[in-house]
Amino acid sequence: MTTHVGLTARALGADRVVIAGETGETSRDTIRDITDRFGGPFEADLTEQYRAMLRNWEGKVVHLTMYGERVQDVEADVRAAHADEPLLVVVGAEKVPFDVYEAADWNVGVTNQPHSEVAGLAVFLDRLFEGRELEREWVGAERRVVPEAMGKTVEPAESE
Amino acid sequence: MTTHVGLTARALGADRVVIAGETGETSRDTIRDITDRFGGPFEADLTEQYRAMLRNWEGKVVHLTMYGERVQDVEADVRAAHADEPLLVVVGAEKVPFDVYEAADWNVGVTNQPHSEVAGLAVFLDRLFEGRELEREWVGAERRVVPEAMGKTVEPAESE
Repeated sequence: MTTHVGLTARALGADRVVIAGETGETSRDTIRDITDRFGGPFEADLTEQYRAMLRNWEGKVVHLTMYGERVQDVEADVRAAHADEPLLVVVGAEKVPFDVYEAADWNVGVTNQPHSEVAGLAVFLDRLFEGRELEREWVGAERRVVPEAMGKTVEPAESE
Repeated sequence: MTTHVGLTARALGADRVVIAGETGETSRDTIRDITDRFGGPFEADLTEQYRAMLRNWEGKVVHLTMYGERVQDVEADVRAAHADEPLLVVVGAEKVPFDVYEAADWNVGVTNQPHSEVAGLAVFLDRLFEGRELEREWVGAERRVVPEAMGKTVEPAESE
């Protein structure tokens, strides 16, 4: 699931993922490998001190949680803030400590239903960037997929 | 991952999930349990014959794949078709047989990047319904989450 969160962040417009917890190394390596092959820029890192990262973040913090305010109610405010400052989006696993709720500028629910942190992140990013992330150009890719009605075509990426 | 696909489908406006493959029973039961607690209508079922289901589907079929046409290019056509007919959205696991590509009216990529089938489904549904799914009212719920800026509040659902 951590790998999917990281790959979703990359595909949908984020520029970095930082994985907290002790089992993140495999996920980080997979995400880096995908970035090497399909392009970036995108960074994948680990942290053992996510609380310090939250505390020292120079910008706004969104925490995605099914208990939060409705995304459709707060997305305009988040978008406006993101125009001026970097945004840290916290995606939790099962039990998120309450101090994360307190550290966040917004606790945001993509629906107030139980579903998937990957789905929540995906919808949040697509709304944050208003679809512009789908037009992103990838740099340093070895290969690219050619979108097509039927088939699976992968070609070498053009050199830059 | 199958459970997350089903819960995402439910949370983001689909009315049913059908799980193919031999290991779907636990996922189905989890999805039904969430529906019992947080409301519906939403159905979760298994099939051993997904090819027959695709063949006999009375409506259009979308297959989500990173090799497909760009979602931003085809979503208006899919939306128009969905106004008249039911839509079956196929979300595959690792290796999707080529006959699924052939059975689909649209092969659609939510980005042509490798990420997560859960993320792809989430963005696809949010775009299909143009955000209206977030306003859905839930019927037959035992409990509901109260959206709020900070906290975790769950209350008994009002009787209907």
